[in-house]
Amino acid sequence: MERISKVVKNIRPLDSARLEKAQKRLDNLTKPLRSLGRLEELAKQICGISANENPSLDNKVIFTLAADHGVTAEGVSAYPKEVTAQMVYNFLAGGAGINVLAAHVGARVVVVDLGVCVDLKPDPRLVVRKINYGTKNMARGPAMTKDEALKSICSGIEIFESEYKKGIDIAGTGEMGIGNTTAASAITACFTGKAVEEITGRGAGLDAKGLNNKISIIKKSLAVNNPDPLDAVDVLAKIGGFEIGGLAGIILAAAENKVPVVIDGFISGAAALIAYHLEPKVKEYMIAAHCSVESGHRFILEHIGLKPLLDLNLRLGEGTGGALAIGLADAAIKILTQMATFKSANVSERDK
Amino acid sequence: MERISKVVKNIRPLDSARLEKAQKRLDNLTKPLRSLGRLEELAKQICGISANENPSLDNKVIFTLAADHGVTAEGVSAYPKEVTAQMVYNFLAGGAGINVLAAHVGARVVVVDLGVCVDLKPDPRLVVRKINYGTKNMARGPAMTKDEALKSICSGIEIFESEYKKGIDIAGTGEMGIGNTTAASAITACFTGKAVEEITGRGAGLDAKGLNNKISIIKKSLAVNNPDPLDAVDVLAKIGGFEIGGLAGIILAAAENKVPVVIDGFISGAAALIAYHLEPKVKEYMIAAHCSVESGHRFILEHIGLKPLLDLNLRLGEGTGGALAIGLADAAIKILTQMATFKSANVSERDK
Repeated sequence: MERISKVVKNIRPLDSARLEKAQKRLDNLTKPLRSLGRLEELAKQICGISANENPSLDNKVIFTLAADHGVTAEGVSAYPKEVTAQMVYNFLAGGAGINVLAAHVGARVVVVDLGVCVDLKPDPRLVVRKINYGTKNMARGPAMTKDEALKSICSGIEIFESEYKKGIDIAGTGEMGIGNTTAASAITACFTGKAVEEITGRGAGLDAKGLNNKISIIKKSLAVNNPDPLDAVDVLAKIGGFEIGGLAGIILAAAENKVPVVIDGFISGAAALIAYHLEPKVKEYMIAAHCSVESGHRFILEHIGLKPLLDLNLRLGEGTGGALAIGLADAAIKILTQMATFKSANVSERDK
Repeated sequence: MERISKVVKNIRPLDSARLEKAQKRLDNLTKPLRSLGRLEELAKQICGISANENPSLDNKVIFTLAADHGVTAEGVSAYPKEVTAQMVYNFLAGGAGINVLAAHVGARVVVVDLGVCVDLKPDPRLVVRKINYGTKNMARGPAMTKDEALKSICSGIEIFESEYKKGIDIAGTGEMGIGNTTAASAITACFTGKAVEEITGRGAGLDAKGLNNKISIIKKSLAVNNPDPLDAVDVLAKIGGFEIGGLAGIILAAAENKVPVVIDGFISGAAALIAYHLEPKVKEYMIAAHCSVESGHRFILEHIGLKPLLDLNLRLGEGTGGALAIGLADAAIKILTQMATFKSANVSERDK
């Protein structure tokens, strides 16, 4: 907990002088005032986060964390749990959605095993920080111990710091874990107080019967564990996942290091909830990539107070929506730093 | 009119075999079915348009057409009309928003003078197809003659065809013309039947008084000219603009040549209305980039039946929103053509 407390204490409000300077510069560019809308807000936010009035986003990193979930024993997913490991191999081979979209925006993908339930074949590109071989079945007791919860957050912090040494100008969150929309729904219900029915979706593709079963399993998990929404680590331990804890750590570490962090979809949103309840200031460092098809996601966004950039009916996870949003962030920073001003381009300003 | 009729006759429905093949391929990729939402729809549409099951979008071209509007004499814009020409120079120098965003997505910008009210300094990168030195003031009579209207559409067709010889896999529409939201609002009111108050916005930045004046000028223009919504060329001639006619021609020529065409914002939307009312099938070739802040834009999208990809509070024009959407289209095609299948990656399919 000490390590986490130290990171949390180092998270500062955004640099207001840099925010103002960015606004001033945006207002002098050859376009009607505020006419690039959310791109301008994004550019300003990134200046405030990085405390840099001339940022560039050369180093883009997406963290895709994988772990298994014991609750899959309850039949909560349309896919067999073996898919978690299979998809990790797919990430390493470059064939998954996140590989394609990360390459599209020029981001590198850091693939981490935080708790896949089998030992994966060694691969120099795979970061192995296994907390355990999957979580326990949260419908019958806590998903993990408190120690494991703390360890998953700390692992996220350490993974970020290790990559930060190689350079990160913007980070994205991503994950893979069969069963993890069940954990994310439980976390969302716990923090937002919304009805489980309202915040539970079909995940990777449940039918109506499967959805009903998933809802009752989430209700059972909440009843059995009684997680305390005032204690984010308790929530993570009882109804979370290793990849969710790891992403919460990455989000906190990004904020500590003044790096904008793009939050992908529903599972990443659940991690953002954990991070936000550990330190609300971390919100200012977050960029919400998109609004997922999973019905719980918009409640997460409302709860934290984030406005998603995209709404493209995505529900893949892995960091895919985050990759697209990183592309928009890059565009926003190029607008700020590469456009001509009215003066430099000899363009008349508006009639006064 | 013959030239235009010939193009219109060549516009065919999308290739249904290619649409089906694309869907099948998307359904076999290592992701839950349809989990990449609108990216998948976009990839499928592009396969149907190009009649190619393995398309690539290497050649991206944004057409930014400039022209002046006589109606600026009525004080309908927050900016002086000289800005049209000044911005053309800015486009050529690479300092405008469209230059930055086009470069970001790897598109080239074709800058065209279709009717700027001064003679611009010769520049090898500027395509000059001047129809006239700005339109006439539509509050006092037709903006242009019927011949000029036809000529503006034909010019768009020829500009597209000339660039198409160099290669175009996807096209974007863009424009610059001080006063052109006034023309676009009048066109929108004429085709959709909505009240002028509902479809008129602040353009580049009018205050409340300016907005009221703009509304009454649009009403006056409609009353003075009485354009016939069943005759798109009549609408263009009486209350349009040269760049709007040119973009309508580009949209039609793109469809004739099986090239997907990304429609930028409000002004481009008015051009899309003209093209759509000349040949409704052209709609299937259109990709709506975003929903503009200009209040009339969403009525255009509803009227044609287009669902915008982005909603980022943009209102710059030039083709800027289109550039961002071209980036998404590129991402969509990479998903289709670069992702692994369940079989190739040895990933288990969903439980049956």
